[in-house]
Amino acid sequence: MFEISSPAPSKSARTRARISAAAISSFVANGYADTTMRTIAAEAGVSVGNAYYYFPSKNHLVQELYERVQIDHAASARTLLAQTDGLVDRLRIVFETGLTTLTPYHRIAPGFLSAMIAPDSPLNPLSAESSPARDLTIALFRDAVDGATHRLPADITALLPRALFVMHLALVLRWTYDESTDRMATSRLLDAGLRLFALAIPFLRLPGVHAGAREMLRLITEVRS
Amino acid sequence: MFEISSPAPSKSARTRARISAAAISSFVANGYADTTMRTIAAEAGVSVGNAYYYFPSKNHLVQELYERVQIDHAASARTLLAQTDGLVDRLRIVFETGLTTLTPYHRIAPGFLSAMIAPDSPLNPLSAESSPARDLTIALFRDAVDGATHRLPADITALLPRALFVMHLALVLRWTYDESTDRMATSRLLDAGLRLFALAIPFLRLPGVHAGAREMLRLITEVRS
Repeated sequence: MFEISSPAPSKSARTRARISAAAISSFVANGYADTTMRTIAAEAGVSVGNAYYYFPSKNHLVQELYERVQIDHAASARTLLAQTDGLVDRLRIVFETGLTTLTPYHRIAPGFLSAMIAPDSPLNPLSAESSPARDLTIALFRDAVDGATHRLPADITALLPRALFVMHLALVLRWTYDESTDRMATSRLLDAGLRLFALAIPFLRLPGVHAGAREMLRLITEVRS
Repeated sequence: MFEISSPAPSKSARTRARISAAAISSFVANGYADTTMRTIAAEAGVSVGNAYYYFPSKNHLVQELYERVQIDHAASARTLLAQTDGLVDRLRIVFETGLTTLTPYHRIAPGFLSAMIAPDSPLNPLSAESSPARDLTIALFRDAVDGATHRLPADITALLPRALFVMHLALVLRWTYDESTDRMATSRLLDAGLRLFALAIPFLRLPGVHAGAREMLRLITEVRS
């Protein structure tokens, strides 16, 4: 009948969660630019000062949105990853569930893109501030690679997850521009890329191709904002 | 002693050129956001109304900047293209001179990136409004491909210039983030990409690789904003 933890943190956690949920729902309804700490506080039923107590800025709430998206993405992907050990199939699962998870955000994606693309933006998916959400997605790609049966060279395998994360961002950038029905143009681009990757896999054991691919992947993993 | 054309268009052309030059110099000095039609008019020594007479908006002056960059790019590239008929060497020339031409703009590139990345922005390099500048760069890539000695399949050759333009945009995006000395990280990425392309060329005649590459290039050429 006695709880060790006091009720205060629990109420605090609930308030924090309510503000976070209100922010996400306001971002989806109104987009990035038209969502303010004031509208978020109003939707959460807290004072503006209280909202700022939990989240120092609107951008901190965007990070909540990023983490929500990554958690949903990982959940959908891991269910499907359990069903196959083919490398290309597993990469397809991570890329496709990534896009599916983003579907509700397609309408508001252009506004976010403008806010997040600047190299010095804390919202940039390659920024230090975005590392919690980014690390979740990189870990998901690592699971996809490490859980697969394949004969890729070990140095390529080590570089792949981080490089795949940058490729995922490039795919999401293309998806943001995609006005085709059901974003079929993006799906077909992913298919074509995976088909070429599948064709390239055996060649990655040839010394020249191996060295070239390793250098390319290494340079891609080094991109930071 | 008698000229057919009246002096009026000539003065008009000079005023237009002065406004265009003032805009470019203000963009370089102050960036996109802090340049206004007012500051441009002041620098050009014309009234704000007069500046608007020649250019309906600041964005029209960004197009002047784009065309200036593309004209400079084409001039540097064509001098070097005259010296080699190797396909990979010629592509390297177009990509490298493209980056070199942009060097003076590196500091202001992030501000432009935020303004031009939105799919509905007239400043987007893939927009209808940007087609004059874009067509110049695509023509340059076409010259680089068509003037080369190579054995690429004809359908690949036809798709390359437009696909290379999109890859050029991706390279410039990476360059915008590049804080390494002399933007060496971007140069090395280009090198690695060209080395892999050189290795891939012979395989493009194999039916499976050919079909996969054609589909990939086709999908890349279809990206529009």
